[in-house]
Amino acid sequence: MSFNTFGQMFRFTTWGESHGPALGVVVDGCPAGLTLTPEIIQRDLDRRKPGQSKFTTQRREADAVKILSGVFEDERTDGPRTTGTPISLVIENTDQRSKDYSEIRDKYRPGHADYTYHQKYGIRDYRGGGRTSARETAARVAAGAIARLVVGDVNIRASLVQVGPHKIDYANFDWEQVGQNPFFCADAKAAALWADYLDDIRKQGNSVGAVIEVVAENVPAGWGAPIYGKLSSDLAAAMMSINAVKGVEIGAGMEAASLTGIDNADQMRAGQSKPYFLSNQAGGILGGISNGDPVVVRFAVKPTSSIITPRQTVTTDNRDTDIVTKGRHDPCVGIRAVPVGEAMMACVLADHFLRHRGQTGREGAVGFHHEDI
Amino acid sequence: MSFNTFGQMFRFTTWGESHGPALGVVVDGCPAGLTLTPEIIQRDLDRRKPGQSKFTTQRREADAVKILSGVFEDERTDGPRTTGTPISLVIENTDQRSKDYSEIRDKYRPGHADYTYHQKYGIRDYRGGGRTSARETAARVAAGAIARLVVGDVNIRASLVQVGPHKIDYANFDWEQVGQNPFFCADAKAAALWADYLDDIRKQGNSVGAVIEVVAENVPAGWGAPIYGKLSSDLAAAMMSINAVKGVEIGAGMEAASLTGIDNADQMRAGQSKPYFLSNQAGGILGGISNGDPVVVRFAVKPTSSIITPRQTVTTDNRDTDIVTKGRHDPCVGIRAVPVGEAMMACVLADHFLRHRGQTGREGAVGFHHEDI
Amino acid sequence: MSFNTFGQMFRFTTWGESHGPALGVVVDGCPAGLTLTPEIIQRDLDRRKPGQSKFTTQRREADAVKILSGVFEDERTDGPRTTGTPISLVIENTDQRSKDYSEIRDKYRPGHADYTYHQKYGIRDYRGGGRTSARETAARVAAGAIARLVVGDVNIRASLVQVGPHKIDYANFDWEQVGQNPFFCADAKAAALWADYLDDIRKQGNSVGAVIEVVAENVPAGWGAPIYGKLSSDLAAAMMSINAVKGVEIGAGMEAASLTGIDNADQMRAGQSKPYFLSNQAGGILGGISNGDPVVVRFAVKPTSSIITPRQTVTTDNRDTDIVTKGRHDPCVGIRAVPVGEAMMACVLADHFLRHRGQTGREGAVGFHHEDI
Amino acid sequence: MSFNTFGQMFRFTTWGESHGPALGVVVDGCPAGLTLTPEIIQRDLDRRKPGQSKFTTQRREADAVKILSGVFEDERTDGPRTTGTPISLVIENTDQRSKDYSEIRDKYRPGHADYTYHQKYGIRDYRGGGRTSARETAARVAAGAIARLVVGDVNIRASLVQVGPHKIDYANFDWEQVGQNPFFCADAKAAALWADYLDDIRKQGNSVGAVIEVVAENVPAGWGAPIYGKLSSDLAAAMMSINAVKGVEIGAGMEAASLTGIDNADQMRAGQSKPYFLSNQAGGILGGISNGDPVVVRFAVKPTSSIITPRQTVTTDNRDTDIVTKGRHDPCVGIRAVPVGEAMMACVLADHFLRHRGQTGREGAVGFHHEDI
Repeated sequence: MSFNTFGQMFRFTTWGESHGPALGVVVDGCPAGLTLTPEIIQRDLDRRKPGQSKFTTQRREADAVKILSGVFEDERTDGPRTTGTPISLVIENTDQRSKDYSEIRDKYRPGHADYTYHQKYGIRDYRGGGRTSARETAARVAAGAIARLVVGDVNIRASLVQVGPHKIDYANFDWEQVGQNPFFCADAKAAALWADYLDDIRKQGNSVGAVIEVVAENVPAGWGAPIYGKLSSDLAAAMMSINAVKGVEIGAGMEAASLTGIDNADQMRAGQSKPYFLSNQAGGILGGISNGDPVVVRFAVKPTSSIITPRQTVTTDNRDTDIVTKGRHDPCVGIRAVPVGEAMMACVLADHFLRHRGQTGREGAVGFHHEDI
Repeated sequence: MSFNTFGQMFRFTTWGESHGPALGVVVDGCPAGLTLTPEIIQRDLDRRKPGQSKFTTQRREADAVKILSGVFEDERTDGPRTTGTPISLVIENTDQRSKDYSEIRDKYRPGHADYTYHQKYGIRDYRGGGRTSARETAARVAAGAIARLVVGDVNIRASLVQVGPHKIDYANFDWEQVGQNPFFCADAKAAALWADYLDDIRKQGNSVGAVIEVVAENVPAGWGAPIYGKLSSDLAAAMMSINAVKGVEIGAGMEAASLTGIDNADQMRAGQSKPYFLSNQAGGILGGISNGDPVVVRFAVKPTSSIITPRQTVTTDNRDTDIVTKGRHDPCVGIRAVPVGEAMMACVLADHFLRHRGQTGREGAVGFHHEDI
Repeated sequence: MSFNTFGQMFRFTTWGESHGPALGVVVDGCPAGLTLTPEIIQRDLDRRKPGQSKFTTQRREADAVKILSGVFEDERTDGPRTTGTPISLVIENTDQRSKDYSEIRDKYRPGHADYTYHQKYGIRDYRGGGRTSARETAARVAAGAIARLVVGDVNIRASLVQVGPHKIDYANFDWEQVGQNPFFCADAKAAALWADYLDDIRKQGNSVGAVIEVVAENVPAGWGAPIYGKLSSDLAAAMMSINAVKGVEIGAGMEAASLTGIDNADQMRAGQSKPYFLSNQAGGILGGISNGDPVVVRFAVKPTSSIITPRQTVTTDNRDTDIVTKGRHDPCVGIRAVPVGEAMMACVLADHFLRHRGQTGREGAVGFHHEDI
Repeated sequence: MSFNTFGQMFRFTTWGESHGPALGVVVDGCPAGLTLTPEIIQRDLDRRKPGQSKFTTQRREADAVKILSGVFEDERTDGPRTTGTPISLVIENTDQRSKDYSEIRDKYRPGHADYTYHQKYGIRDYRGGGRTSARETAARVAAGAIARLVVGDVNIRASLVQVGPHKIDYANFDWEQVGQNPFFCADAKAAALWADYLDDIRKQGNSVGAVIEVVAENVPAGWGAPIYGKLSSDLAAAMMSINAVKGVEIGAGMEAASLTGIDNADQMRAGQSKPYFLSNQAGGILGGISNGDPVVVRFAVKPTSSIITPRQTVTTDNRDTDIVTKGRHDPCVGIRAVPVGEAMMACVLADHFLRHRGQTGREGAVGFHHEDI
């Protein structure tokens, strides 16, 4: 059963509501001996934190993480290390404004999970969306920071590549740019254009969707498993589990439908010690198993459902009404989904790394070790 | 662990290689008391069967299914019923032509999993791709036929909606057409056009990708679960696990990125006994839980990797070479993926139906039963 | 993967070390709509709490539980209710005395997991045994209190039935007595005798084992599942997972080996609306499925390994030494295992109840509802 | 979900009924590259096979196993090897005598699962007990034969140590004797005595229980996992899942209750390269993790429920009646449980070996490899 747990060998369980006292995550299956401090996790959390630009929600949360278990500092060693036991992380909610919730208590917000949670459970914590709030993704980012330690050399980065109808120009792609603009965008020109565009959207009381691309480099060949344990399958589940995601692509993605077999084949050439690929339509995965090329995943985030333009809806007792969702909302939730996408990639890879090592006794491909790659 | 098992409460495990003596599936968790005969399963298998038109592989397989367990006919009752114990299904392979496999034994076929399986396991059954052959999907279709019985009134259908760059016109969409052409296509005009197009592709020694749309109607509101047990997440994993799939979309899909919040909101109106939605951008799923609207999933299948146009590759001992993949291959594997997509939708829904019933004691939304919908 | 998670449909994940800042549990899969307050959980926690008599450790812990998520009080309803989302519970550690840990840091305590954790992980939190401390069982008791709400009418009680070689006399068995003595013992006479016996043991710097019997009444027939999902199998795993447990019995238990088929058969007679059993050698479980009779489980707890009589051991660098384990230890850890056994029984039954409801759509046996029983 | 699947990294799923056409098992997660032939599996199956002495059922089954997938013989290598894909094994049923089943169709056999299956599922395959027949254990033995290959040097053996009230004398314990008598008994004298005793029991139309002891040697320290993934917990679940088992013990077992801490402590001494234990009350497991000593498990099997002495029971429509269970039954099902216990031990260890390797990157304890032990 999955519910609120993700992963098998490296697994985490998140908990917490938007307006409860705290949210958190328990990371289980993390190998022992890794140096882990709150600072390492905080670094990633700070990238996802709200209120960092006018393009994200103005809710003020420090998102300060505490480690409650799973780490031990022996007085004879040089810092806190993971012990192989579950790592419990807690983030307190500090900016849950007291307000009148009767509007969202008695009406279903279109595009939100209000209606479906009510139908399923007959009760829902309507304050800020409760469990369905994107605040839950802070817990994922915390888990992802630990996953990064597990996969070591694997380098996981992401960029916003589309906002509304505006895509980046891959000719301008430069990872260095990602930290230089409020959009985590690798194309500086696109970022400049988006700033104006999003200002307009916000002023209209509207919102817009986005596409995020996540790339993992240095993944050795061999991670993944046949059929229903495919790396691609777990990545699809991981990304689709993020709030507001409606599509997931690996490599060529939906575009693969338009390609011919001649164009789609990633041809191979003999390398020094092992073969290499002339292209990466596969997105680094063949038959569900990594091929040594960068693993490339894209996912589409729908526009923020909370907008201040009135929308038709119904009350919880099935009467017609309108709703305007006031509050502190991201005009494009896709922006803050960038570090979340990285975190989920890290968690999936950490999980598959441990599974692969269990099945084969190797860190990478059979016959050579991770470090050889 | 997933490996070769899919699902939690309704789960199945497949086994078998393309050129082994047989392939099969064990379906576990199927409720007792359902009438099940080989004919019910065969009906679905026959739709996926190879060799039914010139647009699919000419391999001749009867794909005749045998039920080895889990079904019992009490002499006092009116037919074989499931007993709640595992249902073992076997399909014998009958048309594994004996041939010289040294070409694919010693070379990696681009786009196939030859290289990655070799890197992971150090050994691979190269005959017809072994375990990675799309023949495995016959086992899924068999499991799906049982899943359909579990979900009862839920109506699951699929259509090919794109072949290469050619999309259907949704204005022509008519489910009745699906059985009338060799493409499982709901748009008769598109199907006619594709016939010519695919003939060309095949004559060029080439192949092409496709997009399949799967729709489930009569899914009650409430199926699915929060966060990592989302119906959407499991559907994404299910579709991405199908051979050659590179992208999965729910509802608006990747296109959601281009929409604004105003357009994307599925507005609601009060209905007779419960509310209804004015549009279905959500694809029937909000917050990972079904909202009562049709569940709509699309997935992209890459072009068949086996083509008779030579492609550059390497030998298993890392020397440059070319390869031409002769054999009996589908020019567009996407065609036969249509019943496979239906089967995976059925299995995911059966699983979530049982989970939902366990969690809530209800078949549909809390407060009203499945039959009320 | 299990690790620190137990259960499938009703599942919980525990975390925390003996001398860390806190310990806790995340309960996932709890149905929505149940009234849950900290007091309900505290009631069970207080029964397990240390320092309640001279026969348990003198460590002073309030074991005060906080609910951080999963419960919501709508201002229109009459109290906090579960919402179907994960319930996070935290218990702070308040009495971790600062002391010199070098003795247990550098030596392996016989009977403890010091050596094996060191061998597995290469690092261990040696303060109070870290993760292996029986303090972890507080988290189980908290989860069990929630599980009791899930199973409703099912009545779960336990009694200590043996301390060292001294067994209770079942002729004296009276559930009312369990709350009247410091041993949770249903036989008042045995309890009196044990008091003297344990005083002696403690004065000798020794410790002793015990047997606990857990009984669940009002379990409807039909809970459980075939073969590897047996109720008995999950109960065995549950009890064996408790610290220091070395044996688990269902019904007649190990004694079943000595019985003949004539004596062991629980004969049946026709009852008013359904049959009943003339005896309960089966312990309420046949073929892994409940038969409607009380479910009876016993488990043996080994003597507390921490004793002040010196024992031979080795240092972490493999040199011979002796060890005396000072500290505040239970002379018979079996005593405080009584509420823990109840909790694990409750969790297993809650899990199987939800699974059964999912598989069959019924709360009890097919054809009649739970309430009919 | 478990149902008919056991294990996580090394996992198997069994299927089949006593009187269906066949039974079988799918083993998933077996590492690639192991030499596997039907003969290797048959060797273990033949030990469990019915009809080998007058003390087991006279049903004649060849129990001939076929391998349908997961093994590949490359023409360049020296024999069939596992490929990492699922291994499907089938055993045909050949001696299902056609007979009149109305007796067990209309009555519940005491001690059997007839009543509980009927209550749970509303339908049951009553022929020979259907799925609940001990014939299912043939599938486990087949899986266990593969598990033995996975754990390599680990040596797994079992002996019957008690039949009815008659225990072996451990002073006579000699593994060589196990193959020399029809009871798999390591004490030749006990075996001789049991022969007479069981003859008597059988002539009385009665049956009797038994205890089996399973020992695994050469298990490196470090296998297992904390809390709910304990090696001991999984072993308890494994053994309790075997038909008719009512008790499971690790090391000192239930007897641990009677011991004092002084006697129970397995003291340690410094060895050449690592410490060793002076006793093995722990049964090779501390804190759920192997300590390098032999892993010792015992389990009690209740007497065969099918006896020819009439017992009181009820009809399926709740009327009083008697039943005599004719047929070909083992007077002591415990005998044939010996190879089954070995198989379950092998499967649990194979699973934990792979999990441990995944978590730590080591085959045995951290810092030294399996082969060093």
